[in-house]
Amino acid sequence: MLKKINHIGIAVHNLEEAIPFFGGTLCMTFKGVEEVDGFKVRVAFFQIGESKIELLEPTAKESFLAEFLAKNGQGIHHIAYEVEDIEAAIRKLEEDGTRMIDKTPRQGAHGARVAFVHPASSQGVLTELCQMGH
Amino acid sequence: MLKKINHIGIAVHNLEEAIPFFGGTLCMTFKGVEEVDGFKVRVAFFQIGESKIELLEPTAKESFLAEFLAKNGQGIHHIAYEVEDIEAAIRKLEEDGTRMIDKTPRQGAHGARVAFVHPASSQGVLTELCQMGH
Repeated sequence: MLKKINHIGIAVHNLEEAIPFFGGTLCMTFKGVEEVDGFKVRVAFFQIGESKIELLEPTAKESFLAEFLAKNGQGIHHIAYEVEDIEAAIRKLEEDGTRMIDKTPRQGAHGARVAFVHPASSQGVLTELCQMGH
Repeated sequence: MLKKINHIGIAVHNLEEAIPFFGGTLCMTFKGVEEVDGFKVRVAFFQIGESKIELLEPTAKESFLAEFLAKNGQGIHHIAYEVEDIEAAIRKLEEDGTRMIDKTPRQGAHGARVAFVHPASSQGVLTELCQMGH
């Protein structure tokens, strides 16, 4: 059902301060910056093998990411797994009793369609399913 | 320098309670359980694409993982990147001013040699470098 780790989301206060560690020190390939209005975040992507690192900076004080940073500080925010068919994946998880934050997909970065699993159903890990755009 | 994400480490209270979600609901391929004495943990591995999910359960109350769980609850504990030459990778990071927890490699699971980067140097993310055994 899951193809691979699509990306790991890391919450940061400031993209420009965080980019040199991933792009410079760790030598990951920088893939650009994008603003995702629906989530009130600005994201920077880096390629690492078949997966990506997604740095997330909040663009509004009232946002899930600003709240996360205020509570936890910088750190890993979520894991995103790539799926072929996101509706089928949501259906399978709900049939298994998994609590979904999103029962229908919404719009993510790069035209992807995404749905989050509640951390209560996934060992405390905020888990994203994503189906890539065509 | 980094080849891929080798694994994501997730701290759990109990492996047997966590395994069904990853192996059953998410349909990842279960790769077995191993005890790593040096870290006082028992780990379960699942394959997902070219990477693995590593569930970690503490085997002692006085251990870094039991302390992490008491403070944070279950959740993502670290990201491990695979490197070809761990000594060269440590040298490069230190030259760039990165604070290392391990300045020389130590023994990890599956005969790997591992070294941790301090979260203060990596946006709050506990980061592991690992060179696989032959």
